[in-house]
Amino acid sequence: MDGGLKSYLENRRTVINKALDRCLYKSTKYPQVIHEAMRYVVLSGGKRLRPVLVLAAGENVAGVRIPAGMRDSLLMAAAAMEMIHASSLVHDDLPVMDDDDYRRGALSCHKKYNEAIAVIAGDALIMRAFEIAAGTGDCRVIKEIADAAGTRGMIGGQVVDIEPFSRKSKRKEIIKRLDYVHSCKTAALIRVSLRLGAIIAGAKDNQIRAMDRYGKAIGLAFQITDDILDNGADRGINYPGVYGLEASRKKTKKLINEALKSLEMFGKRADILRELAKYIEKRQS
Amino acid sequence: MDGGLKSYLENRRTVINKALDRCLYKSTKYPQVIHEAMRYVVLSGGKRLRPVLVLAAGENVAGVRIPAGMRDSLLMAAAAMEMIHASSLVHDDLPVMDDDDYRRGALSCHKKYNEAIAVIAGDALIMRAFEIAAGTGDCRVIKEIADAAGTRGMIGGQVVDIEPFSRKSKRKEIIKRLDYVHSCKTAALIRVSLRLGAIIAGAKDNQIRAMDRYGKAIGLAFQITDDILDNGADRGINYPGVYGLEASRKKTKKLINEALKSLEMFGKRADILRELAKYIEKRQS
Repeated sequence: MDGGLKSYLENRRTVINKALDRCLYKSTKYPQVIHEAMRYVVLSGGKRLRPVLVLAAGENVAGVRIPAGMRDSLLMAAAAMEMIHASSLVHDDLPVMDDDDYRRGALSCHKKYNEAIAVIAGDALIMRAFEIAAGTGDCRVIKEIADAAGTRGMIGGQVVDIEPFSRKSKRKEIIKRLDYVHSCKTAALIRVSLRLGAIIAGAKDNQIRAMDRYGKAIGLAFQITDDILDNGADRGINYPGVYGLEASRKKTKKLINEALKSLEMFGKRADILRELAKYIEKRQS
Repeated sequence: MDGGLKSYLENRRTVINKALDRCLYKSTKYPQVIHEAMRYVVLSGGKRLRPVLVLAAGENVAGVRIPAGMRDSLLMAAAAMEMIHASSLVHDDLPVMDDDDYRRGALSCHKKYNEAIAVIAGDALIMRAFEIAAGTGDCRVIKEIADAAGTRGMIGGQVVDIEPFSRKSKRKEIIKRLDYVHSCKTAALIRVSLRLGAIIAGAKDNQIRAMDRYGKAIGLAFQITDDILDNGADRGINYPGVYGLEASRKKTKKLINEALKSLEMFGKRADILRELAKYIEKRQS
């Protein structure tokens, strides 16, 4: 990883982790178990990709010296995005969904606590995310998050991902399904993170559109590289499983080029987003 | 039920059901199963108590002839409240929670579809509720809903309600727990419905406080009469189970008197809220 990007990510992750700590109730607050569970889920690791993208998009539009009020709003939106993402992982891990006992090397929420707490903790994280996001005072932020996380975005992708599916389906059907899951399940939250940063930073429409294109491209690329690192088609259908490894790498390269192209209007200030895109192409974890 | 109240409720329920129908995506929209499930959960019955209270509080503050924009906002908040309420029922009915196969005389969501869809449909209803509420353009509406539905309100009540509990606990412990569950699980959403109506109607602080007191009182009374109609302590602990039927009826009467007192500043315009309070005291279903 480029040295500038590495120190940027370290710095922003520290800031984001502090914000998340502030946004979550203390685990001593009654009823303790739910506040403990929420902290366990959110604060026990993670790349913080979505909140970093909120900040990076904001800084790309407004510069690094951001007025305090705007920086607070960016952090609130960033924290909200991570909480929404975390809530989806908790519910995804449930036995009736993907049935994963581990997440990020630690016990998943329903294993650490129990299934009822995991259901409720996921709900509580969504509520808290919107409460924090409302602190921006900008209802567009709420709308963007809710739409991207809802049935036209992340949740839509989850639904299609768990739908019964036969490997003997026609290739056309498989591809349609794969495209839908890819553009929704992971990419929708990544894309909206970029949009939020731009909106909060007071971006013009063409700047929001550019951040949107960038977010869509790296979101898809992130999902494909995720599938490649997962070593192919062990569960469900995925990009290397359908197109093969070579074509998947080519597609990633093409998406990253699209992402870089959408940054042309921003000049040098967008260097962090450029490095981030290149990092997603080459990432090994 | 008083004739005026009856026709009021019929009229407002019709308006609310139309709003809910508009706020939910068509069941033909891909991926169909989730949009079908959301409609099934929200549109298959219910008293619409919370959304009616949003409208009634708004009309109490601003009068029945409400400007179109304000009426739209009241309806958005009302629809959002019903969707949040519905999402909590879907997750409450899950086998890992209360394990109820039926809801309002029909199959519960996980029985009609499956458990994974029920988990996701609940999440999707929360997302959609906040998206609709954001249409009011007022972030206070989002904050109020998220706080009342979160761990300081409804979800906090759910958590304590499912916590393992011994009937041999000290009476002091039992009462503390009962009070917490009562003021949170049901009353928090009822109370915030009144607050939202007042806030959207541009109420002054003392009017919001009056609506808050009214909402808190009828919310608790509603929960106690619910327990009384449920015929006592068959599951967990509840008011008649702890205090007996006679004391529960007395407590309800006291709460309704408190609710009526909090309406004194409003004059004749509050007659609907007065009738509603009296109806909750006497209700047989």
